[in-house]
Amino acid sequence: MGLRVYLSGEIHTDWRERITEGAQGLDISFDSPVTDHAASDDCGVAILGAEPDKFWHDRKGAMVNAIRTRKGIEEADVVVVRFGEQYKQWNAAFDAGYAAALGKSIVTLHPPEHDHALKEVDAAALAMARTPEQVVAILRYVLTGTLPG
Amino acid sequence: MGLRVYLSGEIHTDWRERITEGAQGLDISFDSPVTDHAASDDCGVAILGAEPDKFWHDRKGAMVNAIRTRKGIEEADVVVVRFGEQYKQWNAAFDAGYAAALGKSIVTLHPPEHDHALKEVDAAALAMARTPEQVVAILRYVLTGTLPG
Amino acid sequence: MGLRVYLSGEIHTDWRERITEGAQGLDISFDSPVTDHAASDDCGVAILGAEPDKFWHDRKGAMVNAIRTRKGIEEADVVVVRFGEQYKQWNAAFDAGYAAALGKSIVTLHPPEHDHALKEVDAAALAMARTPEQVVAILRYVLTGTLPG
Amino acid sequence: MGLRVYLSGEIHTDWRERITEGAQGLDISFDSPVTDHAASDDCGVAILGAEPDKFWHDRKGAMVNAIRTRKGIEEADVVVVRFGEQYKQWNAAFDAGYAAALGKSIVTLHPPEHDHALKEVDAAALAMARTPEQVVAILRYVLTGTLPG
Amino acid sequence: MGLRVYLSGEIHTDWRERITEGAQGLDISFDSPVTDHAASDDCGVAILGAEPDKFWHDRKGAMVNAIRTRKGIEEADVVVVRFGEQYKQWNAAFDAGYAAALGKSIVTLHPPEHDHALKEVDAAALAMARTPEQVVAILRYVLTGTLPG
Amino acid sequence: MGLRVYLSGEIHTDWRERITEGAQGLDISFDSPVTDHAASDDCGVAILGAEPDKFWHDRKGAMVNAIRTRKGIEEADVVVVRFGEQYKQWNAAFDAGYAAALGKSIVTLHPPEHDHALKEVDAAALAMARTPEQVVAILRYVLTGTLPG
Amino acid sequence: MGLRVYLSGEIHTDWRERITEGAQGLDISFDSPVTDHAASDDCGVAILGAEPDKFWHDRKGAMVNAIRTRKGIEEADVVVVRFGEQYKQWNAAFDAGYAAALGKSIVTLHPPEHDHALKEVDAAALAMARTPEQVVAILRYVLTGTLPG
Amino acid sequence: MGLRVYLSGEIHTDWRERITEGAQGLDISFDSPVTDHAASDDCGVAILGAEPDKFWHDRKGAMVNAIRTRKGIEEADVVVVRFGEQYKQWNAAFDAGYAAALGKSIVTLHPPEHDHALKEVDAAALAMARTPEQVVAILRYVLTGTLPG
Repeated sequence: MGLRVYLSGEIHTDWRERITEGAQGLDISFDSPVTDHAASDDCGVAILGAEPDKFWHDRKGAMVNAIRTRKGIEEADVVVVRFGEQYKQWNAAFDAGYAAALGKSIVTLHPPEHDHALKEVDAAALAMARTPEQVVAILRYVLTGTLPG
Repeated sequence: MGLRVYLSGEIHTDWRERITEGAQGLDISFDSPVTDHAASDDCGVAILGAEPDKFWHDRKGAMVNAIRTRKGIEEADVVVVRFGEQYKQWNAAFDAGYAAALGKSIVTLHPPEHDHALKEVDAAALAMARTPEQVVAILRYVLTGTLPG
Repeated sequence: MGLRVYLSGEIHTDWRERITEGAQGLDISFDSPVTDHAASDDCGVAILGAEPDKFWHDRKGAMVNAIRTRKGIEEADVVVVRFGEQYKQWNAAFDAGYAAALGKSIVTLHPPEHDHALKEVDAAALAMARTPEQVVAILRYVLTGTLPG
Repeated sequence: MGLRVYLSGEIHTDWRERITEGAQGLDISFDSPVTDHAASDDCGVAILGAEPDKFWHDRKGAMVNAIRTRKGIEEADVVVVRFGEQYKQWNAAFDAGYAAALGKSIVTLHPPEHDHALKEVDAAALAMARTPEQVVAILRYVLTGTLPG
Repeated sequence: MGLRVYLSGEIHTDWRERITEGAQGLDISFDSPVTDHAASDDCGVAILGAEPDKFWHDRKGAMVNAIRTRKGIEEADVVVVRFGEQYKQWNAAFDAGYAAALGKSIVTLHPPEHDHALKEVDAAALAMARTPEQVVAILRYVLTGTLPG
Repeated sequence: MGLRVYLSGEIHTDWRERITEGAQGLDISFDSPVTDHAASDDCGVAILGAEPDKFWHDRKGAMVNAIRTRKGIEEADVVVVRFGEQYKQWNAAFDAGYAAALGKSIVTLHPPEHDHALKEVDAAALAMARTPEQVVAILRYVLTGTLPG
Repeated sequence: MGLRVYLSGEIHTDWRERITEGAQGLDISFDSPVTDHAASDDCGVAILGAEPDKFWHDRKGAMVNAIRTRKGIEEADVVVVRFGEQYKQWNAAFDAGYAAALGKSIVTLHPPEHDHALKEVDAAALAMARTPEQVVAILRYVLTGTLPG
Repeated sequence: MGLRVYLSGEIHTDWRERITEGAQGLDISFDSPVTDHAASDDCGVAILGAEPDKFWHDRKGAMVNAIRTRKGIEEADVVVVRFGEQYKQWNAAFDAGYAAALGKSIVTLHPPEHDHALKEVDAAALAMARTPEQVVAILRYVLTGTLPG
């Protein structure tokens, strides 16, 4: 058994690196959204032409990014959704809902102060982790049956 | 043609009433989550027994509410997702993602200051409205072909 | 057995009326797109606000119309797709492809001069008719087993 | 992440070559319909026997071609649909509808004069491009996160 | 609980009447193919125009009949497939396979001399009956829990 | 919003009656397996003929019962699965797995001594209740938003 | 593009060999049912124990064979269904119905004397061939766009 | 043709080893739940933190194990479900129901004393075996067409 894991959500800290490095040696292929914030915001107009209206500027970018995001989620066995300490992060919650409707195994990753606001998202998840290392431990256990320590 | 419409999201203003009243006379059946905030937060423990840990208190409630939410979205033709001016509202974005994965027609309803943060959600929607009256106008047009004014 | 029939395509002649009138007395409910050409073109901006760019003007309208079109096709047992003698009518072919992927029973209705250009669409259909009266005869036979004359 | 891309539509210009050559080095596998016009038109009767009636001649060919087209679309992550400057091209619009109903990511490619007639097709797409090079740029961005220039 | 039952197969004896009459008083709606043999064979050309080639004559009829057959099977809870003592009856076996792939509950009805040749069909069925009265008894039991005698 | 509820599992106590009576006045339609134990065990041979081998005797009955069970679960919004204090009750756990794979909302109902052995089943449920009255309270809350007391 | 092809039906002539040999060099993987008639008939009892009743003897074998048949059809891109000149061959028609409901591309292969009796099966197929060599030509054309001669 | 086989159920005897060793040389990939009983029971709290309440202790573990179990079943062609002589084994019956709803080929493996209690589970299976060697013989026959002895 191998796993495909999609890492959704917050792009300002090194949580993806901590997971992918921690998981070295396991039979996992990881996918993520484009995490270059500027590129992600501007991809639509950079490729397809400028928009004077910011709404359509954003729309063009979000649609191009959706090509990658949807494929990533649809092919994943496990979707890890990270909520950081700042910003609205509605796209992360949207991804979680999208994954839930497809019956994906969801692991959330967030600090305790978000617990109440994320209760509906957590209720659709099979695990709620506080650290990237816990996510790695889950993936290792799922693939190998071995526990930490 | 009749429509089933699910009204997801913010529960602190009268937007649901403005839509359901505005839509009187149209062949629409509306569903919503439980909008009594206290009942919604406590339904799990009130029915199934107290939990000392707030996390499981919330989980029990969120799971009971999911029975209603999922049925409402799964049976809807149109899912209206409202984002208000306050709070995280991750459950609204989660509902939008859930609806998108099921191929539902989505209408978002939010003020301009959320446009950038909601760009991924809006990109999955067939309309972005600023007022409940615009939502009513969309529903009326979809069912009858008549435009306002 | 009753039938739901969606009447897709050309909006400039009376073919829908000839079918719905011819089918009186049969247990059929008919749906159609909005056939008021001006309303259909402008519904997006009329409800949701003007767009200086014609591309987004059209997009807003097409997305609002999609709420009706998709529901109509998804709930139909039979999708009748009419190609008239003028215009590109790519939306009709799009509807036919959409219906085909959903496994709907498709009946096409078009003049002989389109036969070659429509061969892929016809190959996904269970009947190709030349007149609305033939469509009525098919629906009557499907429901009652009786043939004309 | 790799991509499967289906290139649907117009067969008279070199747009497919410009895309596949431009995408060299990316992890993409491309599929297309048979682009030999004469073979595509006559495959049914050439293999399965002549038909005196042009309608069935066309039907036999269209059905054989459907074996390839449907597999191509069903296995694709991205369906690029090209509308050229001539011909009815209803098969391209049919493919777009088929892809839309399956939830595929659609990219359209067409000149501005078709914008209004293609508004329903474009509304189901995640990007509308004017040049094959823009399509390549989208695919490169989706796979690598890098933007042109 | 009510049931929708589709009665597929042999059209030369009164087995459908014996089932529908025997089931009077139960909450069942029955559907069937068109059982007028001549109408069923000729419906395509009678409505859509003659074909000189018997193959296409048959094809046109079979496609029109498929509108009714597929709807009947797709909406059924139970598909009863009757094999009589004569004829090839490949359409009955085709219907059984179609129903099996959709996960329908299948009841076969046939004499013992067909047991070996129908073993693959029977293996997809939840009951194999010898008489229409046994089919009625199954339907009555499923709906009411009462057994004969 | 109304609900369809399937009541699966133990047939030796009055839990079904307590739920259906407690839910009077709510817009719920209830379905259940045949709860007459003798009829349920013998339905296959009583209708379709005796079997000397107990294994096939049981098989024939289980297949006839499956017509009702699968329809009941497939059409349900909520599947309540009751485990009593005795017997293996593997059919109840089977029904729960079947419902889980279909994405149904599951409510389990069992005494605390089964908690450990049912942990996988409970983990697929949205609520675990100890009494039929709690199940009624959940259904009432889901439909009306009102809590007990 | 490569193809998976399932070869269903008649097991008494060399049609499978003629197809697989003719298709050498093409990117096709072929699957078939077990074509050893005696093994196929007796596999159930040979492995799982004898049955005194021929009906259950056949049932046990048919169920074991179904493991292979269903996988073969479900994973196929193209299902070729061969009807020979003798026997009932209801399993072939069953396979065709099963494949049709799954949306598979079907190619039938049969002599002209079966045309009328197979009209419903042929109507679900994308090609009707008379010889294995025609089937090979179709597969070659689908994969390479080249026609015979 | 190769097979993916998921081995569900009892973890106290060597039946999995007997199957995987017996199947050496066949093109089969086997998956199983974590069979280290202590790790399986405690994985949730060992990774994600202790729970004072045994119910949530168990829930956390069962949810983590579900990541593996669901993937194993969803990707399997054949699900073998073993019921041993002791314990409730409701998770095995749950897996069988889950597999049945997904249309998987199920093989049960259990001693005769469970026949009556497992009749609903067996009725959803394509084979009921008494020994691991019979399971191997089924898999070998399905892949190679060869029977034992």
